[in-house]
Amino acid sequence: MDQSLLRKLLEEVRDRKLSPDDALTQLRHLPFEDLGFAKIDHHRPLRVGMPEVIYSSGKTPQQVAEIFTRMAERGANVLATRADSEKFEAVRVHVAEAEFHPLSGCIVLRRKREKRGRGPVAVVCAGTSDLPVAEEAAVTADLMGNEVEQVCDVGVAGLHRLLAHRDLLSRARVLIVCAGMEGALPSVVAGMVAAPVICVPTSVGYGASFGGLAALLGMLNSCSPNTAVVNIDNGFGAGYLASVINQV
Amino acid sequence: MDQSLLRKLLEEVRDRKLSPDDALTQLRHLPFEDLGFAKIDHHRPLRVGMPEVIYSSGKTPQQVAEIFTRMAERGANVLATRADSEKFEAVRVHVAEAEFHPLSGCIVLRRKREKRGRGPVAVVCAGTSDLPVAEEAAVTADLMGNEVEQVCDVGVAGLHRLLAHRDLLSRARVLIVCAGMEGALPSVVAGMVAAPVICVPTSVGYGASFGGLAALLGMLNSCSPNTAVVNIDNGFGAGYLASVINQV
Amino acid sequence: MDQSLLRKLLEEVRDRKLSPDDALTQLRHLPFEDLGFAKIDHHRPLRVGMPEVIYSSGKTPQQVAEIFTRMAERGANVLATRADSEKFEAVRVHVAEAEFHPLSGCIVLRRKREKRGRGPVAVVCAGTSDLPVAEEAAVTADLMGNEVEQVCDVGVAGLHRLLAHRDLLSRARVLIVCAGMEGALPSVVAGMVAAPVICVPTSVGYGASFGGLAALLGMLNSCSPNTAVVNIDNGFGAGYLASVINQV
Amino acid sequence: MDQSLLRKLLEEVRDRKLSPDDALTQLRHLPFEDLGFAKIDHHRPLRVGMPEVIYSSGKTPQQVAEIFTRMAERGANVLATRADSEKFEAVRVHVAEAEFHPLSGCIVLRRKREKRGRGPVAVVCAGTSDLPVAEEAAVTADLMGNEVEQVCDVGVAGLHRLLAHRDLLSRARVLIVCAGMEGALPSVVAGMVAAPVICVPTSVGYGASFGGLAALLGMLNSCSPNTAVVNIDNGFGAGYLASVINQV
Amino acid sequence: MDQSLLRKLLEEVRDRKLSPDDALTQLRHLPFEDLGFAKIDHHRPLRVGMPEVIYSSGKTPQQVAEIFTRMAERGANVLATRADSEKFEAVRVHVAEAEFHPLSGCIVLRRKREKRGRGPVAVVCAGTSDLPVAEEAAVTADLMGNEVEQVCDVGVAGLHRLLAHRDLLSRARVLIVCAGMEGALPSVVAGMVAAPVICVPTSVGYGASFGGLAALLGMLNSCSPNTAVVNIDNGFGAGYLASVINQV
Amino acid sequence: MDQSLLRKLLEEVRDRKLSPDDALTQLRHLPFEDLGFAKIDHHRPLRVGMPEVIYSSGKTPQQVAEIFTRMAERGANVLATRADSEKFEAVRVHVAEAEFHPLSGCIVLRRKREKRGRGPVAVVCAGTSDLPVAEEAAVTADLMGNEVEQVCDVGVAGLHRLLAHRDLLSRARVLIVCAGMEGALPSVVAGMVAAPVICVPTSVGYGASFGGLAALLGMLNSCSPNTAVVNIDNGFGAGYLASVINQV
Amino acid sequence: MDQSLLRKLLEEVRDRKLSPDDALTQLRHLPFEDLGFAKIDHHRPLRVGMPEVIYSSGKTPQQVAEIFTRMAERGANVLATRADSEKFEAVRVHVAEAEFHPLSGCIVLRRKREKRGRGPVAVVCAGTSDLPVAEEAAVTADLMGNEVEQVCDVGVAGLHRLLAHRDLLSRARVLIVCAGMEGALPSVVAGMVAAPVICVPTSVGYGASFGGLAALLGMLNSCSPNTAVVNIDNGFGAGYLASVINQV
Amino acid sequence: MDQSLLRKLLEEVRDRKLSPDDALTQLRHLPFEDLGFAKIDHHRPLRVGMPEVIYSSGKTPQQVAEIFTRMAERGANVLATRADSEKFEAVRVHVAEAEFHPLSGCIVLRRKREKRGRGPVAVVCAGTSDLPVAEEAAVTADLMGNEVEQVCDVGVAGLHRLLAHRDLLSRARVLIVCAGMEGALPSVVAGMVAAPVICVPTSVGYGASFGGLAALLGMLNSCSPNTAVVNIDNGFGAGYLASVINQV
Repeated sequence: MDQSLLRKLLEEVRDRKLSPDDALTQLRHLPFEDLGFAKIDHHRPLRVGMPEVIYSSGKTPQQVAEIFTRMAERGANVLATRADSEKFEAVRVHVAEAEFHPLSGCIVLRRKREKRGRGPVAVVCAGTSDLPVAEEAAVTADLMGNEVEQVCDVGVAGLHRLLAHRDLLSRARVLIVCAGMEGALPSVVAGMVAAPVICVPTSVGYGASFGGLAALLGMLNSCSPNTAVVNIDNGFGAGYLASVINQV
Repeated sequence: MDQSLLRKLLEEVRDRKLSPDDALTQLRHLPFEDLGFAKIDHHRPLRVGMPEVIYSSGKTPQQVAEIFTRMAERGANVLATRADSEKFEAVRVHVAEAEFHPLSGCIVLRRKREKRGRGPVAVVCAGTSDLPVAEEAAVTADLMGNEVEQVCDVGVAGLHRLLAHRDLLSRARVLIVCAGMEGALPSVVAGMVAAPVICVPTSVGYGASFGGLAALLGMLNSCSPNTAVVNIDNGFGAGYLASVINQV
Repeated sequence: MDQSLLRKLLEEVRDRKLSPDDALTQLRHLPFEDLGFAKIDHHRPLRVGMPEVIYSSGKTPQQVAEIFTRMAERGANVLATRADSEKFEAVRVHVAEAEFHPLSGCIVLRRKREKRGRGPVAVVCAGTSDLPVAEEAAVTADLMGNEVEQVCDVGVAGLHRLLAHRDLLSRARVLIVCAGMEGALPSVVAGMVAAPVICVPTSVGYGASFGGLAALLGMLNSCSPNTAVVNIDNGFGAGYLASVINQV
Repeated sequence: MDQSLLRKLLEEVRDRKLSPDDALTQLRHLPFEDLGFAKIDHHRPLRVGMPEVIYSSGKTPQQVAEIFTRMAERGANVLATRADSEKFEAVRVHVAEAEFHPLSGCIVLRRKREKRGRGPVAVVCAGTSDLPVAEEAAVTADLMGNEVEQVCDVGVAGLHRLLAHRDLLSRARVLIVCAGMEGALPSVVAGMVAAPVICVPTSVGYGASFGGLAALLGMLNSCSPNTAVVNIDNGFGAGYLASVINQV
Repeated sequence: MDQSLLRKLLEEVRDRKLSPDDALTQLRHLPFEDLGFAKIDHHRPLRVGMPEVIYSSGKTPQQVAEIFTRMAERGANVLATRADSEKFEAVRVHVAEAEFHPLSGCIVLRRKREKRGRGPVAVVCAGTSDLPVAEEAAVTADLMGNEVEQVCDVGVAGLHRLLAHRDLLSRARVLIVCAGMEGALPSVVAGMVAAPVICVPTSVGYGASFGGLAALLGMLNSCSPNTAVVNIDNGFGAGYLASVINQV
Repeated sequence: MDQSLLRKLLEEVRDRKLSPDDALTQLRHLPFEDLGFAKIDHHRPLRVGMPEVIYSSGKTPQQVAEIFTRMAERGANVLATRADSEKFEAVRVHVAEAEFHPLSGCIVLRRKREKRGRGPVAVVCAGTSDLPVAEEAAVTADLMGNEVEQVCDVGVAGLHRLLAHRDLLSRARVLIVCAGMEGALPSVVAGMVAAPVICVPTSVGYGASFGGLAALLGMLNSCSPNTAVVNIDNGFGAGYLASVINQV
Repeated sequence: MDQSLLRKLLEEVRDRKLSPDDALTQLRHLPFEDLGFAKIDHHRPLRVGMPEVIYSSGKTPQQVAEIFTRMAERGANVLATRADSEKFEAVRVHVAEAEFHPLSGCIVLRRKREKRGRGPVAVVCAGTSDLPVAEEAAVTADLMGNEVEQVCDVGVAGLHRLLAHRDLLSRARVLIVCAGMEGALPSVVAGMVAAPVICVPTSVGYGASFGGLAALLGMLNSCSPNTAVVNIDNGFGAGYLASVINQV
Repeated sequence: MDQSLLRKLLEEVRDRKLSPDDALTQLRHLPFEDLGFAKIDHHRPLRVGMPEVIYSSGKTPQQVAEIFTRMAERGANVLATRADSEKFEAVRVHVAEAEFHPLSGCIVLRRKREKRGRGPVAVVCAGTSDLPVAEEAAVTADLMGNEVEQVCDVGVAGLHRLLAHRDLLSRARVLIVCAGMEGALPSVVAGMVAAPVICVPTSVGYGASFGGLAALLGMLNSCSPNTAVVNIDNGFGAGYLASVINQV
């Protein structure tokens, strides 16, 4: 039941074709969503300028291509994460302008390029092995209309490299810091800036890193209070949240 | 060595009392911090209007009182978390205006009351048992100059209570959601709003909650991407980060 | 806005004091809950005959007594779990008919005693140490209007004791099986009956029982498919669910 | 020794071919199972209308086909779970009417189609990735003679989708809710209905989902007491238990 | 129904007071345990000379005393584990000959002192902190009729102390080795002897010993194949099993 | 330096070719092992009749074949565990009499067939999936000279099948019980017999079995004290230990 | 049997009072330790100048005092860790010169004060809560004859404080770094120096620090290769190892 | 800005081309690293004679070859860990003198061969399965200029083999001990020597070794205080740290 149906019901009441009590009864049994004014979050993606997102892992190339194409027809930015070159080839058959970021496995269709938000989003990572996660974060934030600056290979074992980027870090309105192994980088970065820092533990490491658990626990226990943590390897979530913070 | 000392050194060079090479040598051995321009984060607390914070757990009443008093003399807001009434009594002897929030164990000295930031911070919690953590978050955010609105007892097992607060939730610029047990509330709340949501797992629960681990894992795996997570029971961190997001 | 307000609105439409479009606008902004027809689960507790429940852990005797008294005034059965004798004394001052089960810490006010449901609920436990949890389950199921039969001390290391109760177990429409340590009892019991078995791991044990984790994992991996598991020591949840299954 | 043998023994006693004491001795050494009256659970599968079930994982296509064929000869419904198309092909050679559900890997032989039980079983899942587990649950419950209704893609991050199905959920006599990641859906669904809810954590997720552990812990800590939990990805167990609850 | 009842039934058949078919029906409904020949393990404790055992933890002094006294009246050895001096005092009021081992908390009533078994049981422990567990094992094995030899303070960090006891170790028919911290001692001891070694991890340690988990995992992974492991701190179980091995 | 060398040294002292002090010095620097009287465990394998054992996992077929051949030349029984058919083919080229057990991956060379020990070793397993581990245990015990009896498919969900084997179980001098999933079988079996029971958790299961952890914890917490546990899937260790217990 | 006894035996051989064969037999049965040349590690404590150490936890004040006094009589330095003031009072009655460090609970008797080793040992800690562990490390290293320098309150969230101590850190020959919470400090410090860094995770923190597990895992995964880790809160071990490294 | 630039600035001040205040401003904004006196750790690798290291895991053969070649051009030793033969072939095309250690996957370019340090580094491992990790440690220590001695197959279940190497172990200035399974070897070795022992848990094992966790926990809980632990399988880190200890 959309609004026109609801109006029709109210008009029947006005025209005395329907008593208020019968209308009340009908209202009581209307499906919630279809009232029109109760669509709680349907417009949320549009409000925050979020591209439609396809999580490609576990989908066939055909499925990814089909969904991607359907979304592309709506005219908005489209993002598919955790894809590979085979899935990209399947997409490109239908959507020629799609681009592929092989490191992170992101397939991107970029229609809107205006930048919003109060300042740059910095994406920092400790080592080259963390780059796939960092790139997923950067691509997401970029596609959502943020200016993105990346800093790589600034692990805490060589502070001078990190300190050399102090200005860039201080300019950022939101920071995303990706690190595996001991996950110490976010604490150090967060101690250098006044902006919020989103920590992304990565599954980089071996042995007692337990698939990113060590980095995750480290970040949750950070002594820098301007930090919060997303799931292991969740570059997309970090980029999304950074955009939300930057644009609200 | 503060800036005046550095200026003096440069003036001696200008006045040829000191050769450039000798100045170079002196500069090379100056303690880093004392260069004045290298105090990386010293002014950060002031910039974000953060009150000085005392983590009282493991300190004696006398220690808390002493630190609190010394901080109070600087004229800023002061916050001591994880205190009890005995520690509050010790503080009140010296700082008569200090107030105590027994539920969360926060001792507060409020000097500056102006509100900053782009909008209200909502602090939401699932059950009355989560209130101590929620109050710590609310007190922190309030003391840092944010307008705070609290919503309590809106667990996911009774959605109508949560939906009744939809307007308040939508108005918030930043949301803090505290929940123990299964920790499902942040996902639901984050699905209802466009603003960033800081998730605080609490240690409320028993058995397989494993001291908050269940809620923590749940929140890290949230299907709502506008979320990030702080440590278990870390109301202070959530309030601090919310303020940072709201004011940057 | 309750139903009378909604009726008033509809009557104004009928009486042409309000146009359908204006009514539409007003409807669109009504708080969800107050529509009257949107109270999702408000009547659920009544429908399943559930007594009001107070989780006493972490509440003061005064708080427990106050809530208990307020609930008692509504005339329904009242249950407070995880209480102690001090809390019971506080309750008894106001509600003289309240009874106390010291083993499980349940305070009970029993007004309605009729039995519902399709048959008896059996509450089985492995050892005397599991009795507190079993009693919490039994008291809950009993108070919700079920016939309850208890079987105790039938650990799997002495099968003959268990087999001696085969008839009683077979008669039950729902079974609750509580066990700590290795948690093997539910698998064995579930293999003997055709009815659903609710498994309650208890924290009874030491060392590698890890607070009930061993029993919990054992029950989740049961080779008997007519089983499901609730939280460690969650006698109340098991009793509640058994009643729901028995009465739906 | 079956019942005829036991009768023969008793007849020998009657005919004085065997003294009571010798009969006693013989009885004392009879194998327990063969007494006829001691077959504890042999008829249970038949009583609950359960199809024979083959867990295909770790068996060769030939083994699955052989067992399936032997069971098919008894004339009852047959179910093989966790199979693949290769195993299905091996089965189909011998049992032409067998059907395959590729998503869940279920091979099904459906002879009896009558529906039993007090009402529909609803199978709800949060995302498309949870469908394999949900389908296993639905196929099992259907094959055991229950009316099954499936609801998919109603994750808690978009409540309106879930609320739109409120009527269907309320009609169900038993609900199965499958969810991975944070596993919050069962708590929300269970809060909307009065019927028992069987929670199935799925291994869908990555990073801190730890193979379904996050969802499992979340469900065990559910604040909705009309819930219980089965093993991770155990769609079969959930479907079986739902049928047991619906038909007892 | 004991054997005399069963004989009576058979005599009635013989005397044609009862037809074989009616007898069959009666037999079919007899409670399993009471058949006399089905008492699966009732005599097992007696066969292995096991004293009755009371696990005192969680019982009141009065309860321990009551059970102890009742058992003492049967004339066998009695053992209460995990007791304290208060419980011992309560026991001694009724059973004057009871003795107390304060280190392990064992209360012992020793009536039968003959030694059985094929040789000595050696109880070895790494440090003085492991002595309570070792003593519980030794007291149990001794009370069950085994010759027991104790070796203490032979941690692997000082091999010479261990090697000095090689003869004693080699003489033992069964060895119990208790160790906390890294739990390395059983592997070393088991490499020195040909007899079976029962490993008892103790909760001695701190930090990453995680309540005995480190020792437990170490022992389960022992490279010496003549070993098996019991629960953390389970001295009683080790002593019991050693006696079973020594006497079967 | 073997004993003859040591005797030679002593003879030189007697013959005054070597002073006591020089002899002392030589003795002090002799390699420990070569003293002859210090060969701690060299003969142990022979004493317990243990075949030489090759753990094939991680070795190439060539390596397995080479070691196997070398051992075969000594004339004793040889056992290679965790092998596959490719490795067996490599062995058979050199040792024609070698036999292969494909289920468990054991390659066996059987020279000595006499049986030792006080009675049969029973190897019991819960389901067909546990057979590989059970077979490894049975092959090991058999090759070490024990009479072995296997009982399969006697899971606790169908007690009647287990009870039917009561006589066989009671005859055994040592029992090995293998079970995955909830690991409840050893407790039940151990409650039926007076002999020692070696528990082998298997990695059979999925989800919350966590690779055998659930079964492992269950067995460690067994309420039957005549049990001890070996590592997950460690059939070899169980067979070895059973032999040690049976033959000491 | 010490060396003089062994010489006597050899002399008897020389003097033909004992035949070589009889001497051989005697040698073969000598207790290993008493051979004199086989005392593997008896002199090790003396060689490294290690004070005798008493782990006081779990000992009574009387026991600590007794052991402490006995050790003091040998004239060496004595150290008792994990003591409290009550235990110190008991010690002081007998050993008047003993000193107490209340923060770490160390009781110290200092006889030898000479410094050995190649340079200073630096003991660094992140926050004041880590001081007890740091002090235990410092007291141990000091008592073992090392020059010790302490640096406190240099957490990674305020790098300038750490950088200010760069000279001191660079001078150290061995560094001990204690940190709780996320345990990031050792990685940063180790990146600033060329010397070995011993990491001590502390149990400081709450929630997801899991009693020091987060810091432990972080340190094990450090990206700085000049680090190794000791047990949680193991200040003594760190101080001991630092001394060993500094003096070997 | 290197030192010459800084001198130029100071000279401009001397020459009054730049006022002290302007110089101050310039200094304040200089990138930290380029000040010349702030290059914290840039020369550290050179000071400790560390070869450049490439962690090959996750890199393509081309990437490894490219980095290796670039490093080789600087004339120092080069080490690539965790490589395979394909990567080695790619390297050898460009750097003909490179050598490959297939067991550990190390590619090595050895230019400098002088030995430094105070004595030999012993690399000890328990079984042949630990050899890859031990070799990585040995190759690293060797390439960093240490004399290395390897001892293999000295598991604690056969002490005599270990004791036979006592002299070699005692000579070492630093020891690296690699062990999987229960990880007991380091405790035993550390008890035999006075030198520091670096423990390397390996992922060798199965079942409850949990990928090396059992060995890791065992080593962290070692009762020998002259030990510290690196990450599971981290042979490189152990070799590096041993070199640092040996050469500082």
